[in-house]
Amino acid sequence: MSSDTAATPRLVTAAACQLGPIHLADTREDVLKRMISLLDQAAEQGVKLAVFPELAFTTFFPRYLLEGQDLDQYFDIEDPRKGGIEQSPNIKPLFDHARSLDIDVYVGYAERSIQSDGSHVDYNSSVYYSAKANKIVGKYRKVHLPGSVEPKTAAGAFQQLEKRYFRPGDLGFPAFRAPGLVDGALKKGDMENSTTGKGDPIIGMLICNDRRWPEAWRVYGLQGMEIMCCGYNTTAFQTTSSGHAVDMSPEAAEELVMLHHKLSCQGNSYMNACFSINVAKTGAEDGNPLVGGTMIVHPLGHIIKEAVTKEDELVVATIDLADCDRPKSTVFAFEKHRRTEHYHSIVERTGVVEPELLASD
Amino acid sequence: MSSDTAATPRLVTAAACQLGPIHLADTREDVLKRMISLLDQAAEQGVKLAVFPELAFTTFFPRYLLEGQDLDQYFDIEDPRKGGIEQSPNIKPLFDHARSLDIDVYVGYAERSIQSDGSHVDYNSSVYYSAKANKIVGKYRKVHLPGSVEPKTAAGAFQQLEKRYFRPGDLGFPAFRAPGLVDGALKKGDMENSTTGKGDPIIGMLICNDRRWPEAWRVYGLQGMEIMCCGYNTTAFQTTSSGHAVDMSPEAAEELVMLHHKLSCQGNSYMNACFSINVAKTGAEDGNPLVGGTMIVHPLGHIIKEAVTKEDELVVATIDLADCDRPKSTVFAFEKHRRTEHYHSIVERTGVVEPELLASD
Repeated sequence: MSSDTAATPRLVTAAACQLGPIHLADTREDVLKRMISLLDQAAEQGVKLAVFPELAFTTFFPRYLLEGQDLDQYFDIEDPRKGGIEQSPNIKPLFDHARSLDIDVYVGYAERSIQSDGSHVDYNSSVYYSAKANKIVGKYRKVHLPGSVEPKTAAGAFQQLEKRYFRPGDLGFPAFRAPGLVDGALKKGDMENSTTGKGDPIIGMLICNDRRWPEAWRVYGLQGMEIMCCGYNTTAFQTTSSGHAVDMSPEAAEELVMLHHKLSCQGNSYMNACFSINVAKTGAEDGNPLVGGTMIVHPLGHIIKEAVTKEDELVVATIDLADCDRPKSTVFAFEKHRRTEHYHSIVERTGVVEPELLASD
Repeated sequence: MSSDTAATPRLVTAAACQLGPIHLADTREDVLKRMISLLDQAAEQGVKLAVFPELAFTTFFPRYLLEGQDLDQYFDIEDPRKGGIEQSPNIKPLFDHARSLDIDVYVGYAERSIQSDGSHVDYNSSVYYSAKANKIVGKYRKVHLPGSVEPKTAAGAFQQLEKRYFRPGDLGFPAFRAPGLVDGALKKGDMENSTTGKGDPIIGMLICNDRRWPEAWRVYGLQGMEIMCCGYNTTAFQTTSSGHAVDMSPEAAEELVMLHHKLSCQGNSYMNACFSINVAKTGAEDGNPLVGGTMIVHPLGHIIKEAVTKEDELVVATIDLADCDRPKSTVFAFEKHRRTEHYHSIVERTGVVEPELLASD
């Protein structure tokens, strides 16, 4: 595909690090070994960015009604007095290994954030660890929590208790740059010497259900995001408001869930002219089926590469961030085409306000 | 597909009235005859809502650089002193025929709006004509105009001059109700007698390029829109910023354009839990290829029915608006899940503001 002037390639070899099921009986040490094994395989393929799923280190525990230590065990403690989450003994080995391989990492985890008064607030979070900087350079807390606060009471209801266990993210959608992820990026003070050069890649992060919310993508798109990282745990069927599976065959249900996943990731990547790296925890966790669909999507909306299993699997592609340039400067040149004067209800209204009913005559 | 309590069906038989090419030499009388013929076929299939394309009555003239009478001939005059556009001799026969068949109509046209001082402002517009009410009950002026004000100067450049010929729409995205389009709709004052009943169907309208802008869909979604009507004329290849076709085979180019069309319509229908009726003017107009892809999309994102030709063709489906209820009350129950405190840049920022460059060390 040509553009008017051949843009300088900005290549990144990226891996979507899909995880198969993590059962209740699996230990964190077991999972960490699997993740480190994926990093080793990624390094052999020249990968510089590895994206892991949401809540990657454990089973998807919000499907269970838990309390006390049964719940606490799933969280990693973030205590400002003791350093960031990268100091957690559960997580540090992953970043240490990534650093030894020069690979950046996105990973999701359950965050217990200790407040100054000693109390805590819990979030469904992700961080972006930069191997070059040897630190976390991006942090995100899931904004769009699905499910309910109170468990569904109907017999046989499926639970989704994220709204019970987590507070909605308070960090917004903060795009950030990944230092050194591509060669030749302009640095502060370099700009006057270049009219066409680009800085370090601009990264966005979402978690699972967020990917169905175009507002989230757009706020990142308005920061020039080039790569969206998004991990997820997505149940392979749909439920009614009482928590029962919608009455259709398992195959049809999974096909529908997969359609929604693809429309969300491909549609929003296209409409924001960005790559997206979408990574599942998949397979059946103690009998609870999760969809796969791990895939790397192009800014023109097509799937570059996707997973073929529901197990631990690496999906690797070398992407060229220069492919964002044409759509960002033509059909999606936001500054030329957006009409913000007509968008106000997006921020002024949370729920639906219907047009009033018509008169009977 | 079951829900918790079987909702009362709210059935609408709808037709996407695709038009094949309209060449420069075709008269408006010729086109009107084709449209009326489609209405007659629709009536035979029990259709109550017929959706026609953008700028349905003429060739897609913004591909030409025109002035004076050569340009003026494409516009329909809307002069408040002489009644609305439905009085235009070019358009009135369509609505008269629709009324005789009891069919509502969405149709796109080039609007020349006469101002109180006698000057005029031009818009790329659509109206919704209600057969039951025998009047226009919805009007929309295209907000997201593609293309450029000045013609591309490079030799052999393709032109897209909508930004030259039209002003961006000034009406926002006003959803409205279609009187009597389904049986048994609640009317003003009936609500206290029903906890589950619904009013007349809530309709949204977009035009062509608007469908790629999630903000537009969302503003309608926040009004409870159940059916989106969208006509389009979409070039079957993509161009660079200088106006040249992107260098790829015609087949690959058309496939890519079709992918973008489908991701936009299916993705945004899914994310707003609405039906959408997407209608092409298609085929080659004097050698200029337009994509087809006319289709009716379900609120769960799948295509219910789509066109198989690039000629005048009726795509008919009976849809049940009750199918919007489950997604609107679960995954897309906006009032439970949206977090407007994080969406502000969508209205506060038109173009991109990138994160600042990193320091070199």
